[in-house]
Amino acid sequence: MIYFDNAATTRPDADALRKAAEFTTELYFNPSAKYGGGFAVSQKLSGMRESLLRTLGGTGRYDLIFTSCGTEADAQAIFSCGRRGNVVTTEGEHAAVYAACTELKNRGVEPRFAPLERDGSVSPERIASLVDEKTSLVAVVHVNNETGAVNDIAAIARAVKARDPRTVFLSDGVQAYGKLPFFLPHEIDLYAVSAHKIGGLKGTGALFKRKGLSLHPLIFGGGQESGLRSGTENTFGIAAFAYAAEKKFLTVKEDFGRLLSYRERLFSLLDPSIFLRLSPENGSPYILTVSAVGMRGEVLQRMLWDRGLCVGTGSACSSKSRFSRVMTACGYKENVLDGVLRMSFSPDTTEEEIDSSAEILNSVAKEYQRNTL
Amino acid sequence: MIYFDNAATTRPDADALRKAAEFTTELYFNPSAKYGGGFAVSQKLSGMRESLLRTLGGTGRYDLIFTSCGTEADAQAIFSCGRRGNVVTTEGEHAAVYAACTELKNRGVEPRFAPLERDGSVSPERIASLVDEKTSLVAVVHVNNETGAVNDIAAIARAVKARDPRTVFLSDGVQAYGKLPFFLPHEIDLYAVSAHKIGGLKGTGALFKRKGLSLHPLIFGGGQESGLRSGTENTFGIAAFAYAAEKKFLTVKEDFGRLLSYRERLFSLLDPSIFLRLSPENGSPYILTVSAVGMRGEVLQRMLWDRGLCVGTGSACSSKSRFSRVMTACGYKENVLDGVLRMSFSPDTTEEEIDSSAEILNSVAKEYQRNTL
Repeated sequence: MIYFDNAATTRPDADALRKAAEFTTELYFNPSAKYGGGFAVSQKLSGMRESLLRTLGGTGRYDLIFTSCGTEADAQAIFSCGRRGNVVTTEGEHAAVYAACTELKNRGVEPRFAPLERDGSVSPERIASLVDEKTSLVAVVHVNNETGAVNDIAAIARAVKARDPRTVFLSDGVQAYGKLPFFLPHEIDLYAVSAHKIGGLKGTGALFKRKGLSLHPLIFGGGQESGLRSGTENTFGIAAFAYAAEKKFLTVKEDFGRLLSYRERLFSLLDPSIFLRLSPENGSPYILTVSAVGMRGEVLQRMLWDRGLCVGTGSACSSKSRFSRVMTACGYKENVLDGVLRMSFSPDTTEEEIDSSAEILNSVAKEYQRNTL
Repeated sequence: MIYFDNAATTRPDADALRKAAEFTTELYFNPSAKYGGGFAVSQKLSGMRESLLRTLGGTGRYDLIFTSCGTEADAQAIFSCGRRGNVVTTEGEHAAVYAACTELKNRGVEPRFAPLERDGSVSPERIASLVDEKTSLVAVVHVNNETGAVNDIAAIARAVKARDPRTVFLSDGVQAYGKLPFFLPHEIDLYAVSAHKIGGLKGTGALFKRKGLSLHPLIFGGGQESGLRSGTENTFGIAAFAYAAEKKFLTVKEDFGRLLSYRERLFSLLDPSIFLRLSPENGSPYILTVSAVGMRGEVLQRMLWDRGLCVGTGSACSSKSRFSRVMTACGYKENVLDGVLRMSFSPDTTEEEIDSSAEILNSVAKEYQRNTL
């Protein structure tokens, strides 16, 4: 099986799980417990927090709040900082941000959605034109999870802060973290990440928070995570996350370069009479989205699965509507939207897999054409 | 090491982890993915949901929403159903309920806290006297996590519903689930549970919800959990939870009886000139709370740890105040509150551990007395 749906979730890293296993055997203590075992776990937790902060150069400048997933990290940020006036975001956000911002309407806060460029990115000017003196929060996704387009969040955040330094800036970094070489510039107040997109486990995420910014909790109770996120810490998941992230960041630059060449190689091997490229060249090397114009992506997806190739069709966690909200916002017509296929890679992806997948994609698309003639 | 802090967290069940491991190896797919692997995971998830519903006789009558912990399950229930008028709860709640109800004040809802009996339970009459026509939610803990007192939540819920069937009834069942033989009566609308208290992993919880009751989400996004809890499902944690629960419920009645005799045996072996019993006889057999009157519980706890006995001092996830809020609400004076020790057991607890722990407790308390004379 060639697994090219790494943007939906990744296979957990076996080394990270092995290293983390001590939290299910010897170090199972509650980190809040005030005896030796509790202290030991609590200290290890601090070490893992620091390790994750280091990955984005956040040491000393940022705090890190562990959450149960990227979606919760986004919710924590949005419901905490989007409490008045309006919130500016984009049509290209993951559902975690899009749905939370939509919910703000019910709470008397106006969400404003900036339209997308054709490649799924948002222009800094479009954001700027929506921001005004009543904007409490701006949220812009770092890497568009459906096209791989990369937004220049540092520049956008700088422009937002130049207008009013009190406007909070959030970026959903779920598809960027561990994949793009990137240090957090201080204009970015909040940055949401997820473990299971980089070899960690489902059920663990985190929110990077600029020191000095105060947040409200979403979940109240025992006062864990400096009072910002109560509930016994998911020590095993956090450890698997920290170890997986450490490993990813060791080779983040080399992987970036290699995956870029793989992505281009895959596209160059696809039949140009069938596949239209939707991902930009300057996007994430981990995502190649194309459309088999006029075909049904979901049908192709199942045929590909039967041939041993696993790919996505837009966002794996979107709802029941026929077309992807984000791809629609890119401005494509129905015949393009129908045929969307997303190939998303991991550092374990090999050149052989790239070549085989191209063959399977071309062959399956031709079979589809024959069947529907 | 004799581990008697199972109310704080349990050592994960090795069998459950082994069975669940397929979700980190072959079945790592995103359950929302629309290809074979995604469907397979999604189907297994449904099976585990049904299995957990069966444990409390909830099949067909209840839905189950997976959350990241018991605290989140409580928050989901309280912020969803406590939206107007007042909310009636007790002084004996876990911080997850207590802090969430306190937060309601900031949202224009009045929290009302029923006082406790000496043993940590709440009388149905005290609850009834606080409920009025403006009560939107009543929340009563099933087993008090600090004393082990069991509330007759079925009777309390019946009384609340008799007054007004629209009042929603929630119980935090975290210390009861998998320990007390118990079926959910239909008067209980919502029941919150946690995996890591019964051999599952930290980072997984669930909310049983009576069918027909509608809830608001706390976390928005991809629409998982019937739209009530977005975020990619923690498949590994859920599987470990389901397998651990299945195992616990196989022997829940026998374990109850055996642990009851162990709890009484332990108390009978403790030096009556030192230890005052705070747990009621009709409480959970899994918890024995005593006070070494006049001594400092935290100091004893560390001395016991050094002697190979791990015990709690009230709630492991409470905040910085010197005395436990719940034990204070039971009406004890400072010399009793200071010396609180909680021994909490698991089905793996042995008679030998009971006997050894009594020796260690008596000996350490005497050493403490000698040192402070």
